Amino acid sequence: MKRSEILKYQKMAADFICENGIVLTNKEKENLEVADFGLNDIKNIGLQIVTYINTNKVCAKEMVLFPFQTCPEHVHKDGFENGQYYEGKEETFRVRKGSCYLYVEGSGNKENIKAKLPNTTVTVFHEIILDEGEQYTIFPNTKHWFQAGKQGAIISEFSTKSRDESDVFTDTRIKRIPEIEED
Amino acid sequence: MKRSEILKYQKMAADFICENGIVLTNKEKENLEVADFGLNDIKNIGLQIVTYINTNKVCAKEMVLFPFQTCPEHVHKDGFENGQYYEGKEETFRVRKGSCYLYVEGSGNKENIKAKLPNTTVTVFHEIILDEGEQYTIFPNTKHWFQAGKQGAIISEFSTKSRDESDVFTDTRIKRIPEIEED
Repeated sequence: MKRSEILKYQKMAADFICENGIVLTNKEKENLEVADFGLNDIKNIGLQIVTYINTNKVCAKEMVLFPFQTCPEHVHKDGFENGQYYEGKEETFRVRKGSCYLYVEGSGNKENIKAKLPNTTVTVFHEIILDEGEQYTIFPNTKHWFQAGKQGAIISEFSTKSRDESDVFTDTRIKRIPEIEED
Repeated sequence: MKRSEILKYQKMAADFICENGIVLTNKEKENLEVADFGLNDIKNIGLQIVTYINTNKVCAKEMVLFPFQTCPEHVHKDGFENGQYYEGKEETFRVRKGSCYLYVEGSGNKENIKAKLPNTTVTVFHEIILDEGEQYTIFPNTKHWFQAGKQGAIISEFSTKSRDESDVFTDTRIKRIPEIEED
């Protein structure tokens, strides 16, 4: 992803958050993460993230999705870190603004979903539609992907520790940690 | 605390949250917790709480303090539950609206604090002033108390599991779980 594109999406996401009455510090705006997952198609597949806190136990983020932008399918598995076992991330998504189509393991099939089928591998289609003020908890080891509705979305995430680099994506082309190209 | 007073503070807190662009469901408004800590002086000592989620691992709340209202001094200690050891609650306070005077263990004395001295026992005076968009993490086993500034405050809390009934208050008159008097 080009540096100029990252800066553009950073600003768009920070503006969207602030226009909706959520106050960020300047440092948070500068550090706002823009993830294109290495697919180079940020308009359709990407996620913008402000991480407020990420301790050994608790993580809180504000996530932004632009209209119909998709966060691709992945799972937070149990694992080992420094020789120590940990349980996969448990996360609650709460929609603050807009709406979100969330898909998790369970009944449902791809012909009947409300989201637009994204150009990345998705295999779970149990649909949860979250409007403003609604939330859903995803327990560890559960595949999931999500897409914003036509207004985009601001989604608060309350979770256990984030270890983004250990997320397992269904689409094997994906690189979670962005590669930045200077331009 | 009288039922009518609880209902009044519930509505005031829900209105304050919603006026500031945070969407709550009707159920969350109805379940909004009003705590007077058994001191029967809610105007000065009290806390209003919306609990979004409280699993075994993660808790997220929106807390409301009205102008100069104080949440009294307490500590989240390590303990045992069903024979199992747990670490005390770790919590991050993030001010969404207004400002908050937070006091934790450390240097500082009561003559020099910006908050109004509350009519409840306080023994720690290390001052942290949080304005909108600012946050602070309180680790387990740390005494703390906090008060809103003149505009009141909406404070997001991101934490490990809440076990409110096991909070230890410095003021031994305090009862954390409210006793409701029908009127």
